[in-house]
Formats: sequence, C-alpha cells, structure tokens
Amino acid sequence: MSISKKSDQTELDALRHSAAHLLAAAVLELWPDTKNTIGPAIANGFYYDFEFQHPISENDLPLIENKMRELIATWDEFKREEVDLKKAKEIYHDNQYKLELIEQFSSEGKTLTLFHSGKFTDLCRGGHISKPNKELKYFKLLSLAGAYWRGNEKNTMLTRIYGTAFFSQKELDEYLNKLEEAKKRDHRKIGQDQELFFFDPLVGKGLPIWLPKGTIIKNEIEKLAIKFENEYGYQRISTPHLAKEELYLTSGHLPYYQDSMYPAMVMDDGTYYLKAMNCPHHHIIFKSKPRSYRDLPIRLAEYGTVYRNELSGTLAGLLRVRSLQMNDAHIYCRKDQIKDEVKKVITLNLELFKIFGLKNFWFRLSKWDPNHKEKYVDEPTNWEDCQNILREVLAENKLDFIEVDDEAAFYGPKIDVQFESVIGREETMSTIQLDFVAKTKFNLSYTDNQGKENNEIFVIHRAPLSTHERFMAFLIEHYAGTWPVWLSPIQVAIISVGKEHHNFCQQLAEEFKKTNIRVEVDDANETVGNKIRKASHNKIPYILVIGDKEMKSEELAVRVRGQEKLLKIRKKEFIDHVLKEVNDHQ
Amino acid sequence: MSISKKSDQTELDALRHSAAHLLAAAVLELWPDTKNTIGPAIANGFYYDFEFQHPISENDLPLIENKMRELIATWDEFKREEVDLKKAKEIYHDNQYKLELIEQFSSEGKTLTLFHSGKFTDLCRGGHISKPNKELKYFKLLSLAGAYWRGNEKNTMLTRIYGTAFFSQKELDEYLNKLEEAKKRDHRKIGQDQELFFFDPLVGKGLPIWLPKGTIIKNEIEKLAIKFENEYGYQRISTPHLAKEELYLTSGHLPYYQDSMYPAMVMDDGTYYLKAMNCPHHHIIFKSKPRSYRDLPIRLAEYGTVYRNELSGTLAGLLRVRSLQMNDAHIYCRKDQIKDEVKKVITLNLELFKIFGLKNFWFRLSKWDPNHKEKYVDEPTNWEDCQNILREVLAENKLDFIEVDDEAAFYGPKIDVQFESVIGREETMSTIQLDFVAKTKFNLSYTDNQGKENNEIFVIHRAPLSTHERFMAFLIEHYAGTWPVWLSPIQVAIISVGKEHHNFCQQLAEEFKKTNIRVEVDDANETVGNKIRKASHNKIPYILVIGDKEMKSEELAVRVRGQEKLLKIRKKEFIDHVLKEVNDHQ
Repeated sequence: MSISKKSDQTELDALRHSAAHLLAAAVLELWPDTKNTIGPAIANGFYYDFEFQHPISENDLPLIENKMRELIATWDEFKREEVDLKKAKEIYHDNQYKLELIEQFSSEGKTLTLFHSGKFTDLCRGGHISKPNKELKYFKLLSLAGAYWRGNEKNTMLTRIYGTAFFSQKELDEYLNKLEEAKKRDHRKIGQDQELFFFDPLVGKGLPIWLPKGTIIKNEIEKLAIKFENEYGYQRISTPHLAKEELYLTSGHLPYYQDSMYPAMVMDDGTYYLKAMNCPHHHIIFKSKPRSYRDLPIRLAEYGTVYRNELSGTLAGLLRVRSLQMNDAHIYCRKDQIKDEVKKVITLNLELFKIFGLKNFWFRLSKWDPNHKEKYVDEPTNWEDCQNILREVLAENKLDFIEVDDEAAFYGPKIDVQFESVIGREETMSTIQLDFVAKTKFNLSYTDNQGKENNEIFVIHRAPLSTHERFMAFLIEHYAGTWPVWLSPIQVAIISVGKEHHNFCQQLAEEFKKTNIRVEVDDANETVGNKIRKASHNKIPYILVIGDKEMKSEELAVRVRGQEKLLKIRKKEFIDHVLKEVNDHQ
Repeated sequence: MSISKKSDQTELDALRHSAAHLLAAAVLELWPDTKNTIGPAIANGFYYDFEFQHPISENDLPLIENKMRELIATWDEFKREEVDLKKAKEIYHDNQYKLELIEQFSSEGKTLTLFHSGKFTDLCRGGHISKPNKELKYFKLLSLAGAYWRGNEKNTMLTRIYGTAFFSQKELDEYLNKLEEAKKRDHRKIGQDQELFFFDPLVGKGLPIWLPKGTIIKNEIEKLAIKFENEYGYQRISTPHLAKEELYLTSGHLPYYQDSMYPAMVMDDGTYYLKAMNCPHHHIIFKSKPRSYRDLPIRLAEYGTVYRNELSGTLAGLLRVRSLQMNDAHIYCRKDQIKDEVKKVITLNLELFKIFGLKNFWFRLSKWDPNHKEKYVDEPTNWEDCQNILREVLAENKLDFIEVDDEAAFYGPKIDVQFESVIGREETMSTIQLDFVAKTKFNLSYTDNQGKENNEIFVIHRAPLSTHERFMAFLIEHYAGTWPVWLSPIQVAIISVGKEHHNFCQQLAEEFKKTNIRVEVDDANETVGNKIRKASHNKIPYILVIGDKEMKSEELAVRVRGQEKLLKIRKKEFIDHVLKEVNDHQ
C-alpha cells in the first residue's frame, strides 16, 4: 500500500510550493518588469508561469537559482495577510493576470490573502512550509516551457519555469539521477535511434507512423495479447473506425464527450464520427442476436483504434497521441459471474506483467461516493455489491491495493493498475471497469433460465496492456531499448568479413529465416569492427561474424549481448536455443 | 484470351437494348401515364428507368413480360428517323426527362433520332438488332430497383426494371440457373446465416462489422498473406488512418479525388482527411531515411484501412463499402529491378490463388495511348520500356493475357487480374501498377553506386488479395459457405448426447483447443439429431457425437462433412489429420 507516501506528499507539496514563491521572488529581483502569475506544486516539483518582457533561455536558470539561494537566507516565514478587493487590486494594478484571479476569487466569495516572505509578496491561498530559510535548501531549476495562461490556447503564451525541491540532498540527487536516466531512456530518442516510429508533418501531429522494426515489436505484443485472450475464452471481432452520431447519442458520448472527439463528418446519409472508444460498437455486436443465460459470459476482444482530438500543443511522443490502438475487450456477464470474471481478468493481467518483467505496480479501487449521488448512476445496491466483489477479489488474491472514494466512473466502480516506471513516473497502465449503465443505454438483455428477458447485464471494460502507444513508450523506457530476444526486431546479426563470405552469410540467414528467427545480414563494405559496433549499438541479442575460419568450422562463434566471452555452439543447438527463448518470452 | 467474347458482346448488347425498347413499349401500353426515360444494355442484360404514376411491384413483372411477348410479334424492324429539335420537343412535351436529354444532345450538336418499332417510338441513338420479331424471343424480366434520374441523388427517384435476353433458350436457362446459384451463394445471405458480418443502422452504411466467425476467416486470410509477404521479403509497417491535407496536396489526390474522400476534419493545427489510399503514407516512410542502391528493392506492406465516400444508395453488401482493408504493399525499386519484382509479385499472386482454388482468371495489361498524351505522365521512354517489361513477364510466364490501349493509370501501365466468379461475374481482384509519378511528387530518391543522388525510383503498387471486403464476398460465393478446414470458423463440433457427457465433451474440447483446433461444444438440451442438423447446416467439417459408447471407445467416430460413412480414428491421429489439413491450407 502506498498510503504512507501520501502524507509525505503534503509536506513535499508545501516545500515545493514555497520554492515556487522563491523562484518568483528571484525572477522579479532580476527582471522587475516581469509579470508573475501562478506557481503550484506538481507531481515531481513545481513551476511558476511568467510573462517576461524580454526572452529568457535555459542558460538563465543558474542565474535565477543563485538569486534564489541568496534570497532564501532572508526568508524566515510566510506571513499571511487578508486584504480586501480594493487593496488587492491596488497592489496588482499593473498585472492583468493577478487582477483576473482577484476578480474571480472575489466573485466566488473567497477571502483574498497575501503571503509575505522576505521582501517578496504573492497573492496565494497558502500551503507553505513554516521555516523556509531552514527547510528550503535542496532545490533545482530544471527546464523552460511555453504555457498558455490558464491552459487556454486563446490566451497569451507565458514562460513556465520548472524546478524541484526535496528535504534532503540525497533525495534531490536521487531524483536528478532518475531524470538523467529518463533522458537516456526517453522513448522518443530510442524510438528514433532504433527506427521504431516517427512523426511526419505531412501526416500530422499525434499520429505515430510505425517503421518496420517498431511494427515487429507492436505485432509481437499484439500476438501475445491475442494468445492469452484466446486461452481465456475471448472472441475476436473487428469493428469499423467510424459510426453515426446516433450511436454516440445512444451511448451518451455525445454531447458530453464531443470536445474530445474528432470533428463530425457529414455524409449523404447522416453525420459520422471517428470512434473515440470501442464499447458502443461492441455493445452493438452483443445486441446483434438474442443471448441466453447459457451464452454468458461473452468476451469480445479487439485491438481497436480510437481517435481523440487532443490539442496539438499537448501532444508528446507516444504518451499523448491522437490515434490509439487499445488492447480492448468487453465482457458481458450476469451479476453472479462478475467475481469470477474480474478474477480471471486480474490473473490474465498478472501473467502478462510477469512476461514483461513488470514488478512495481499496485491496484487502486475507485469507488463512488454516496454523498455525491448526482455524479453516479442511481443503482445503490449495484454500487455496494460490486465494490464488495472487487474488494474481495483483490483481498483474496493478496494484492497490494488502495481504495479511493469518489473516483469511480459515472457508470460503475473500477480497478486501475498503477505502475511506477523505471524513471519514477506513476501511471495507470491497465484498467478494469464495471459498467451498469450500458445495459440501460443500449437495452442489453439475455433470456434467463426461467425463459424471461433479463436486463441485468453487467459489462466489464478491460485493457491490461493499455494502448499500443502508451505501452510501447513504457516498454522502451523499461528496457532502455535492450529488447528481450522475443521482442527484438533483429534477433541475430550476421556480419561478413569479406566479399567472399557474402553468399555463405545469405545462406545462413535463409536457414534462420525458415525457422522464423529474425535475422539481418550486414555485408556492407566496412570493417568488421565497425559492423560489430553498429550491431552492438542496436542491441541485437546475437552477433555472428563469418570469415574463412567460421565457414570451415562445425560450430558458430556467437557474440551474446552483454557478455564478453564468445559462445561456441553448433548451429542446430543455437537455433533451438533462440527459439526456446522466443517461446518462453525471454 | 477472351477477345472472341467481345464481338458476341456487341450483338448481345444490341439484342438487350432492343429488349429494353420492348419493355418500355409494354409498360406504356399497360400504364400510358408512365414516363419512360432511358434503357441501356448492361453487363448481363438491360434495364429501363420509368417514372410510374402509381407504384408497381415485382408481382407486376409477369404481366409486363406477357405484354412484351404480345407486342414483339408486331415488331419487324427498328426504323430510324432523324428529327429536328422542335419536333422532338413536341413529341416529348409531357416528359421532362426526354426533354432534358433532347436539350442536352442538341446543345452538344448531336443528331436527334427516333426509332420506331411496331406502334412504339423511342428517342435513341441506335444499336438494335435488325429482325426483332425473329431474334428477340429469349428474354426475362428479373427485378425492380430504385434509381435516381441520371444517378444523381438530388434528382427524382425512378423505378428501374431489370431484365436479360439471349439468342437461345439454352443460354437464357444457363444464365437463370447461374442467378439461382448466385442467390444461394449470395454473400449477404451466407454472411448473415453463418454470422460472419453485419451492418447496423447506428454504425452506418457501408461499414461492415465483423462478428467472431467472420473475424476468424478474415484473420486467417491476413495471416496467410503476411506469411507469404514475409517469405518474399516484404517489411510490415503500420500507418495512421488520417493525414493532413498537405499530404494529399503533395500526392495530387487533392483536389482531383476529393469527392471520393471523406469530408475534411478541421483541427487546431490544420485540416485532416481519412486516408483514401495507403501509398502517400508509404512514400513518407520510404523518405524517412536516406536509401542506398544496396537497400533496393524496399517492399513495404500493410493491411491498411482506407475510406471512400461512396453515395449511400450505391452501397451493396461487402462489394461496395466505405471502409476497405487493402492487402496493400508498395515496392520501391530501380528500373533494372522492375522485371524481377513484377515477376515475383505475379508468382506470389499465383501461389495465393492456388491455395484458394481460384482458376478462372486472366491478366489484362493496360497501356497508355501515345495519341492521348494529355491523359498520361509525360515520360514516353518509361511508358514504352515499362510496358515492354510487363508484357515480357506475362509472356515468359505463359500467362493468359490481353492488352488494352488507353486504359493505364495516369502514373503508369498496370496489370489487372480478372476473375470470373462462380456465378459468372467478371471482376478485377488483384492489381499490379507501375508508378513513375510518385518519385517526382514525393521527391523520392536513392544514392546510386556512383554515390550520386538518383531520382529514378519506380514504385509498384500491388494488392493480390484485393480488399478484405471484396475478397471475403468473393470467397463466400466461391465456397458457397463451405469453407475449407483451415478457414472454417469452427473446425470440429462436439455434440453431447446427454448431461452426463458434458464434462467429457468439455475435456475433449480443451485438448483440441490446446492444439489450436477451433472447436465448439454443443451441450444444449436438444435432441442429438437436431444438434447434428445444426452443425451440418453450419457446414462444420467434423462432427463428433459423444455418448456412453464413445466415452468408452478407444476411437473417435467422426462425421466428415459431405461424407455418409463415419470415420473411425484414434484421437491423436484425428488431431494430426486436422492439423495437417490446416497446415496445407485444405
């Protein structure tokens, strides 16, 4: 359980928000004509957004940081002062951003408060450390970015300065090391370096183009998911990427979700949308024929592509894209089947995680809040029963989980699987969501064992491997580009010493190909050393150098990734060895 | 070669167009207030479009046909008469359709001609048989349909009557038998009956939804294509379903092809379109890194989905859809590699056709016309050289082919593979197209063996298995729903005699599943006879009935599709037998 982390987080947030004040103070000392706006704590640090009157660059960060260290000595407290609207407006008469906040807070009936520290004052709601000059020592400014005022692209573009702060040098160092590691593992960098995917301005933002090597990995992951889903009794389906607006009016995605959907396309027979989710299509398949209690559960699976209209400025590598291939499935079952189905979904998840060597994860059970009934579908018994079922499954399987109130979806409680990535980022990778709304919206039903039509169909939405895009980003970081053999786009590199060895290399490659080993011959007119360096840089698991000696030998001399010593092995045994690794997902 | 068919066709067209006159004459005799419009010969018959003043139904067709037989006795010729605009307008003063045609022909400077036969007269350009009362005997009216005047959905919806005619009773009977057969093999009927796919009004027209059984077949076909493409050195890629308008302006699809594309979607960073073809995306991948002469040919393959904005009224089952998954690939090569590459593509095609038992096909080489240079890219040497290469490949491989002038694409000559379906419909299933325009439009190039940048990149577009949608429609008809074992959604049906045999059936099914045999247990509370009939109706290749005797026996008693006698076989042998069939694509 990670509850203990939570209280630390409140203190860390106070430290970091205090650091944001200090950052603003330093900037205003250095460039008094700057307009400061807001500076919150965020997941791993803090930021402050400014309107600078002259452009600054990352080169200015050390200067600002030095000024921060100079000023902090004089900050012995954050002194709170309540002010009235008039005074607040006077103080910020030349800062339209603060004026806008003052008007808003005032109209919402909030008390306006200032916080004074040293010679610096900021309009702020509070949440600071009590002894800044004692506690605020271990901080660092990290980067610059553009950010629209209040996140709205119609507003002025401000300059955001990011930083972080900790209570000890050790923690700060650890975090900075993780950032260094993150840079090395950056999925965009490795993706480009290994020729996995790219983006092209003619094709457009947020639309990854998968190159041959990336497609191999993507297809292997998909094959794995399909293999498991077959074993677990899922049926595969294939649905169009579009639907009429009537479908999304039925599902309720329109009009509520419209902003996240691609723009409408008006055709001669109605208005069409690219799908932003697969569920409505799957419900249509469930409804396509009468279902009996004996048919349930029905598990419909599809690596369906969905489309989200994200603002172009927010798109980032594979982590935020506009076209997502989901490892999606929907399970239609009776209430008495929920427990068993959720258990199976979790088992399937755990089996997949094991294959990818994923260990740092925990479960989060998101529940409704009976005090905020307006946010949730009005089926109190189903809420309580289903939450109990989910809790039981987690507890009986001795899984590490936390419970959070008022975080469920409108349609039912859910279990998210939270991962801590190798670089310390927490993210939701998998999700298992119960849905009691679909049955009503789509009028789903089955004939029960009394021969009666029964509307109590529960839908489980599940996606163990997230989207291809997110999961690939995660895996690239996770493996730092050193793919296990079964995922390696090239498993064996064959390097010819001279021209006279080309044919032999090609023959050898053909032999490997016939066993489905992915092999690449490098017969370029370069030195052997150079060719080995290239193959090593590309992290190819096995390298064979073929010269006169090797052509005559009974054994192959294999350079194994990460090992110094050559492996001497007969060809047949080597092939069996590689195939076994692939089969075992190693 | 099918050139001889062609002259027959001209005579058949004259016969059928004459039959259309006769149809109009009969309709006007029966309902004089009807407005007749046009009545051409078409591929397998003829039609005439009418505006009826009262609705008619298929039940009226025998009545019309009888009237036709009555009238034809009085038709000894088609007498031609030239008329001036004024007279023509007088004759048709109460028929706005004919008036529209008269105005149009007149404005185009065409001679206005009437054809008289018996008491009937029609405005017509000619093309009739000379002795209608002798030759026009073997005809039949077939069906009714709605059709917009001049095919434009903004115009009035007319009633179209379809019919056919032949020169002998035998040919007519043969054709009507083929139609009967076609009805039995109708891919929409079998698709629904076998639960392969369906359309749903909420999802929209022309967007097939693949059910589990249809998805199995579709995936098996895709797996086969991928297996072959892997063997032939294709690299798989995966590209987004969208692109910015800039891509299609570069490719030239915009504005020329815009009407066939889905409507534009305006996003915050530009205008996007659903892709109507995969080539531009593939060219972008080719361009994504420098290419050397040693890298060529590069073969990029993708079962890419493309989208066409067809009018909703023209959509028909899987044969005309709005979303198409193409068995697509693009080969980038030097001129000296074209011959070998085209040869390999054809070999790949033939190997695939053989697996599906496709025999009635021939090749069509479509060439440019040097007299119509304005229709073709201006590279005369490439046209002549490439046409010669294509002809050589066809001739050297002793393939049945015809050559047609002035039928090439703008960008280069092509080879289409024409199929005659089991019900006699001719269609283009596969295509191999050379393209010398892409290199210019996308500025494709490679570094040649002199180290120089060379722009002479030839692109081969190829799609042996057409689109999934067309190919599935074709195969459903081809097999009449009796899928070979490797494609059968269910390969083995296990039928339990009583409740006490359910567990044994399930265990047996699990054993089969582990070997990847697709199996379904029918343990419904029905008679064995009924369950066998269901499985036979679903054309399941193997049926096992499990009762007391079978549970004790060392051997399985297998009902083999299409065979009377039970096959007695040990389980292990049976599994091996099925797996061998799957492996051999039987």
